[in-house]
Amino acid sequence: MNPTLPSASRTRRPLALAAFALPVLFAAVPAYALDGKWTPAQVLDIDARWLKRQGLKLPPSALWDDTRGTGLLTGAVSISGCTGAFVSDTGLIVTNHHCLFGVVQEHSTPARDLITHGFLARTQAEELPGSTTRVEIPKRFTDVTAQVLAAVPAGADPAARLRAIDAKQKALVSECQRQPDTKCKVAAFDDGVTYTLIESIELRDIRLVYAPPRAIGEYGGEIDNWSWPRHTGDFAIARAYVGADGRPADRAETNRPYAPEFFFPIAKDGLDEGDFVMVLGYPGVTWRALIAEEMRERRERFFVRREDLFGEWIAILERASADDAAGKIAVAANLKGIHNRYKNAQGQIAGLDRGRMVDKQGAQDEAVAAWAATNATHAGAVAARDGLRAVLAERERSWERDFLLNLVPMGTDSVAGGIPPLPKGLYFGATLAHNAIERAKPDAARASGFTDADQGKLRDRLRSEQRNYFAAADRRVFAALVRRALALPADQRIAAVDAHFAGKSPAQIDAAIDAMYAASPLLDIDTREALLGASTEALEARRDPLLAFGIAWNRDLRALRERERDWNARAALYRPVWRRAVAAHAGKPVAPDANGTLRISFAHVQGYAPRDGVTYTPFTTLAGVLEKHTGREPFDVPEAVRRAAQAPGAGAQRVNFLADGDTSGGNSGSPVIDGRGRLVGINFDRVWENVAGDFGFNPAVSRNISVDIRYLLWLLRDVERADGLLRELGASPD
Amino acid sequence: MNPTLPSASRTRRPLALAAFALPVLFAAVPAYALDGKWTPAQVLDIDARWLKRQGLKLPPSALWDDTRGTGLLTGAVSISGCTGAFVSDTGLIVTNHHCLFGVVQEHSTPARDLITHGFLARTQAEELPGSTTRVEIPKRFTDVTAQVLAAVPAGADPAARLRAIDAKQKALVSECQRQPDTKCKVAAFDDGVTYTLIESIELRDIRLVYAPPRAIGEYGGEIDNWSWPRHTGDFAIARAYVGADGRPADRAETNRPYAPEFFFPIAKDGLDEGDFVMVLGYPGVTWRALIAEEMRERRERFFVRREDLFGEWIAILERASADDAAGKIAVAANLKGIHNRYKNAQGQIAGLDRGRMVDKQGAQDEAVAAWAATNATHAGAVAARDGLRAVLAERERSWERDFLLNLVPMGTDSVAGGIPPLPKGLYFGATLAHNAIERAKPDAARASGFTDADQGKLRDRLRSEQRNYFAAADRRVFAALVRRALALPADQRIAAVDAHFAGKSPAQIDAAIDAMYAASPLLDIDTREALLGASTEALEARRDPLLAFGIAWNRDLRALRERERDWNARAALYRPVWRRAVAAHAGKPVAPDANGTLRISFAHVQGYAPRDGVTYTPFTTLAGVLEKHTGREPFDVPEAVRRAAQAPGAGAQRVNFLADGDTSGGNSGSPVIDGRGRLVGINFDRVWENVAGDFGFNPAVSRNISVDIRYLLWLLRDVERADGLLRELGASPD
Repeated sequence: MNPTLPSASRTRRPLALAAFALPVLFAAVPAYALDGKWTPAQVLDIDARWLKRQGLKLPPSALWDDTRGTGLLTGAVSISGCTGAFVSDTGLIVTNHHCLFGVVQEHSTPARDLITHGFLARTQAEELPGSTTRVEIPKRFTDVTAQVLAAVPAGADPAARLRAIDAKQKALVSECQRQPDTKCKVAAFDDGVTYTLIESIELRDIRLVYAPPRAIGEYGGEIDNWSWPRHTGDFAIARAYVGADGRPADRAETNRPYAPEFFFPIAKDGLDEGDFVMVLGYPGVTWRALIAEEMRERRERFFVRREDLFGEWIAILERASADDAAGKIAVAANLKGIHNRYKNAQGQIAGLDRGRMVDKQGAQDEAVAAWAATNATHAGAVAARDGLRAVLAERERSWERDFLLNLVPMGTDSVAGGIPPLPKGLYFGATLAHNAIERAKPDAARASGFTDADQGKLRDRLRSEQRNYFAAADRRVFAALVRRALALPADQRIAAVDAHFAGKSPAQIDAAIDAMYAASPLLDIDTREALLGASTEALEARRDPLLAFGIAWNRDLRALRERERDWNARAALYRPVWRRAVAAHAGKPVAPDANGTLRISFAHVQGYAPRDGVTYTPFTTLAGVLEKHTGREPFDVPEAVRRAAQAPGAGAQRVNFLADGDTSGGNSGSPVIDGRGRLVGINFDRVWENVAGDFGFNPAVSRNISVDIRYLLWLLRDVERADGLLRELGASPD
Repeated sequence: MNPTLPSASRTRRPLALAAFALPVLFAAVPAYALDGKWTPAQVLDIDARWLKRQGLKLPPSALWDDTRGTGLLTGAVSISGCTGAFVSDTGLIVTNHHCLFGVVQEHSTPARDLITHGFLARTQAEELPGSTTRVEIPKRFTDVTAQVLAAVPAGADPAARLRAIDAKQKALVSECQRQPDTKCKVAAFDDGVTYTLIESIELRDIRLVYAPPRAIGEYGGEIDNWSWPRHTGDFAIARAYVGADGRPADRAETNRPYAPEFFFPIAKDGLDEGDFVMVLGYPGVTWRALIAEEMRERRERFFVRREDLFGEWIAILERASADDAAGKIAVAANLKGIHNRYKNAQGQIAGLDRGRMVDKQGAQDEAVAAWAATNATHAGAVAARDGLRAVLAERERSWERDFLLNLVPMGTDSVAGGIPPLPKGLYFGATLAHNAIERAKPDAARASGFTDADQGKLRDRLRSEQRNYFAAADRRVFAALVRRALALPADQRIAAVDAHFAGKSPAQIDAAIDAMYAASPLLDIDTREALLGASTEALEARRDPLLAFGIAWNRDLRALRERERDWNARAALYRPVWRRAVAAHAGKPVAPDANGTLRISFAHVQGYAPRDGVTYTPFTTLAGVLEKHTGREPFDVPEAVRRAAQAPGAGAQRVNFLADGDTSGGNSGSPVIDGRGRLVGINFDRVWENVAGDFGFNPAVSRNISVDIRYLLWLLRDVERADGLLRELGASPD
């Protein structure tokens, strides 16, 4: 599963490196498979000659300049929980349709249905602002591992140790943020094997330039999701603006397009099977650094329960909005997010089983442990693994209750593609309660997402979630959650639920929830916003039953957070010890698990054999789009596209392609660039066989799915006649 | 759709032939696509040099000797409604597992479950006789078109014309059958474009030698049926016996293995992508000679109604036998046949729609009509087409009633893979009634299947159907049929149903049926057999309500047969005129529609692209069998096979393959032979995209599915250790 990584001749880090050799394993799989979501700095650990042979035409130093802590890679930016790519010096950003869907939805009305018909701004004046859309551009990366660990006092227990680490991180962030217009964070890699200080610029005036009709942007819908062959035009274009002084600014008429230092010009020549590509982006979470027992918890508890619960939610949202046009629009984005996670859970289960990944991880863990036990430097790894096992055993004792408590995110926790905050009647109240408690602390001591600096974002989120609120659906999701909580075993009760609902029949629960919603002004956008600064006492004084439930729920959740903090403190002590042994045993650089920071994956355009007798070819075409057309959702190609597709030769137009990019959730919208750093595609999905790639890379089936940039250009040229935009993208309108 | 056929340099028939040229169409499809289920004699119409280039290593005259009216092709024999192939000079016949399933079932008991465990005779003494299994070996083919048509009196109307043709055919058959041990029939091609007298030998002592476990022979079951990739070991081996004098004989200890004149030795070398193969067999029915309006009737009425009705029957049989082990065994074969036809109906609908085949046929018809209208020889074709249209319009007026009446076959009508006779409570009675009426006529005047010569076969059938009888299921199918008949419009009533069930509620219908079954000895095998010779009066005198219903039903059916006779008479007048125009317009040999007679198709091993982004590779492997294994039906590989599959290299063992053979129902069990006439595979299915191939050949997706003969040899060698059988097959046991 983990081929030997060819290492750089100038070794930057003290790693035990195996001699460069393509291992025998490669005989059976494409010779260029190379897994890893590499950090920018790791790019320089890889042998430049090897990268050149793969197809990289630029010097690696053009991708990343370690002395400046930046490089071309930073043309990939973070946007709405996705990745986006600057593609012009006029602030144009290409990302996925589903990543800008919120902006499309924000400006859609039954009368002006941009969701259905798509949108094209023919002038900058026509562009549509995304009220809560933000773009984060990384400015500089600095390894601060030594500084962070030096802050830990000698003899500290795990909790004291983590407190010291957290305090040091906050101090570093605080110092860093003294620079003007700079957002800073310290990212921990694999629970603290390394720490990196990341400085970013956040732009706040982001406007929609182009979104295709939903029938293009979501072509294939849930039926095709996570699968190949695919024919989706999952792209959209935004533009980032800054103030007249060139600095980040709120939306204003006087703002001007942002000129990024790095951007990816659109490739002019075609892309073909076997071509080298790189996928850049912000993958969110992967689980490759887990020990086998932790993987088993994901398989047997986490994904099983998610599949079960999301299936229920999907049914509720669909039924509740079935006969309500406005309700359908309101639940659309949330439904999409849940669907996606639902199918993901199924794929994770299937993939973990098919690849027998838990067993394989167990065998690998054993090999590392056996080796470490006889190695002076890493002898502590065995005890570290036992420590991780003990933490897991503790977590499992209250697993079912904690799963339910963690379902409702606090504040801005949830991200696009993740779990949307539901039920909102609980989310709003619990978030207000959480914020009130955090705000009572000094700013530096607050939980992430609730500092003074976060309040604006929090306010935006509490406003923007209103558009996803549909009363009938929300109350039913609330009732479903209550029913699950009432069914918990005696030693895993949720006090908030027991206090409000114990002993009630399903009908009585429904009635109680209806009464709570009816009595509460929490679902009113302005009242809610007015409560954002309120203290816990002020919130309690309102005697709003829905708010009271949120406060009580939050109390349970905060107790859980305390326990989690202890678990995390121990994991932060044990996992780095264990992972350092794993890396030393591997004798090569090991890419850390995804953690929402910028990564790069080296890949090649290639198909795969999903099963005996079947080959998936790496490209799909416009002819294939039409082949799927039934005239019914999700296969209803708009008339204008069908007409344009009749032109001679149009059927061969490339639409989507496969590569062995090592991607995950958060890589949505990732630029796929060629060896010269030019944009050739936009990543938007993985294949079904690769969903469990979060637990390990399999060169035979690990494939990411991208839109071929030529499909976007074709639509802009042959359907939209968007001459101005095409010229701005450096493409000919003819 | 119909590529130009390269014609023989020595033209045997008066055909207007286009110059030999691969048409431009072939640029997009494999260069060797050549559709057509060719009659043996037509083989000699094809350019021998072209066949050689395709890969034929034998002279065409080895395939067929026109002077003798026989050749290697007759190594393919008719068996149980399927095709089989002689593979040794010791009477061994290879065919599909599903074609010999009846024999396996006949010898299966809960205690000795051959269905589940399979069967291997290690000596000839152990072989298991199939009590009703027959093998028909073609001996000689003679074109009798001129003789048949000469029998039509000048000025005869369509009915008189068909009577004369029928009489002449019967006379020819009667004369022919004066030869000892010879079975004769005259086959009409495309309703009478040509007539061929076919002489055969029928062998009556056929014994089962080898059948794999059902889990191999039906691996993939209904889930994989009609689809690729496939991993089914759909093969079985029988042996034909003759009397000590070498002549056909009933089963006897003194019988000895039959030594066929022609057989196909098993190929020793491998088969690879692109290899030339020939598929021989007895395809039953295709509809390529229909005019567009007739195709529309198939699409919009026939297959739609079949899908609907068979879906209902499947549910009934499955529910009724769910908790009854013996019931499950009893309905197994019938259920399989219905499932197969059910999925076929769905595929026909999908394929006709996807290929827009009705519209295309319409355009082609128009082209022929326009051409014929200005052509002196074929000007009558336009009126002939109008005649066919008028017949269709008449048929459609009572379509729904006639569909129901035709559901219950009479006598030995139904064939393996077709509609099984259900409900048997009706089938038995109606068949006895039908036979009584026919037997009252002179032998020569009787309907086919009811002559004196047919009585033995009829008796066998009435006996053998007993093993498929399961009372609970049969009564429910009966009730379902009654309910459908009661729902017919006023001008399409079935008198038998009205007389027995009019005005009854569903519960009353069920009660009435239960009473009829309870009162009738018809379901008793010996009583029924005793009634086989009885006259109509004797049957009526029994006052058995179930039998009375069968007699009444048969009365309605006979009235329909009268009307059908008229329609057929007119079609037999019009269609040959029309088809001759079609062939003349095509300017090349045209293969007639399948009619259960021996045909050959020239093909190449090749995969295809079922849709954009997907390629089906032409071979599957043993590794793929294991990949599908779940331990649950229909993917439950027997332990012994899994064990053998662990041997080094075994995973690469070829299992199934695709070729562009032009096949249809009846081609089940067809030998697939290489250019030297050696057996390389056994055809058993078509791919889903090719189900509607019955209406036209599409080189891009017309693929037949065969078992690779090496899979059979591997099982016999590595799992069964069937050394003796392997040696007999000319294969090494090691």
